[in-house]
Amino acid sequence: MEKLKNKDLQRISIEEFKNSRKTPITIVLDNVRSSLNVGSVFRTADAFLIEKIILCGITPTPPNKDIRKSALGSTNSVDWEYEDNTIDAVLKLKKNNYSIIGVEQVKESIMLNNFKSSEDQIAIIFGNEVDGVMNEVINLCDKVIEIPQFGTKHSLNISVSSGIVIWELWNKLMSFKI
Amino acid sequence: MEKLKNKDLQRISIEEFKNSRKTPITIVLDNVRSSLNVGSVFRTADAFLIEKIILCGITPTPPNKDIRKSALGSTNSVDWEYEDNTIDAVLKLKKNNYSIIGVEQVKESIMLNNFKSSEDQIAIIFGNEVDGVMNEVINLCDKVIEIPQFGTKHSLNISVSSGIVIWELWNKLMSFKI
Repeated sequence: MEKLKNKDLQRISIEEFKNSRKTPITIVLDNVRSSLNVGSVFRTADAFLIEKIILCGITPTPPNKDIRKSALGSTNSVDWEYEDNTIDAVLKLKKNNYSIIGVEQVKESIMLNNFKSSEDQIAIIFGNEVDGVMNEVINLCDKVIEIPQFGTKHSLNISVSSGIVIWELWNKLMSFKI
Repeated sequence: MEKLKNKDLQRISIEEFKNSRKTPITIVLDNVRSSLNVGSVFRTADAFLIEKIILCGITPTPPNKDIRKSALGSTNSVDWEYEDNTIDAVLKLKKNNYSIIGVEQVKESIMLNNFKSSEDQIAIIFGNEVDGVMNEVINLCDKVIEIPQFGTKHSLNISVSSGIVIWELWNKLMSFKI
């Protein structure tokens, strides 16, 4: 078997990215602490043509050395904005008819493998590394999804959990189109 | 909605993990450089009850400060071993009837969303952050899978790509059992 060279992958330019039809998902980062995690979310969002990332509260914003380390330039392709308060960000999204999906461990959560969506536009909320998504934000969610986990640890790293959730939603919403 | 406390999650102990029936997947890390990435793979492997991680070549091994930072103790639950040469590791797995699945961008790769498996035991190989899976190892693979990507960047971070692939295979192999 023959490995593909970078040029064979035919990745798009930043300008082509800006003009591409996006996956109808906006990502909301609710007070995420780690710049490396934020950069990693940018890189994943670039891969799956995510329409926007909203960085809220203490979430670090570009330009930032550690975001750059893990984003590797994807802060230039993926649209983003900053909002002081996650609640305000979510209320705006609701007003614009986004279905609000939190990623958290709650009594009422739907396991990711059982999650179905026929919504036009989705906002997915990922929370702080220790405290998760704020209670007030959880209460604004239409649904909450949880990644089923069976081991000894409480949760997954946010880079990994955002990768898994974005992949699964892309797969459900978009993979039949390629 | 009410967030679950750690005790509500009913995570298992290390001893219970050791005695659990595992997901029939072994992960092979072929000369992965970053200790943080290795720790992250351990944490994901813990969540999905992966049977073993084989750390090959220059891949750092526990105990290691940076592995601990991202593994958060999961090096104590997930079985692992070290092998000097990835080729030897893969040949042993083949002898034990594992189906060998590389994760790489090759001409013959199967997109992850199209991948189907009815194998009893699978070994998944993730490669170096820059060079990917070694050519000699790719040539030993039964199949190679690739995560479809549509953005400007060449690839995903290995913590994220391993999370996505492990999730997808767990979902296909095991989710109907819960």
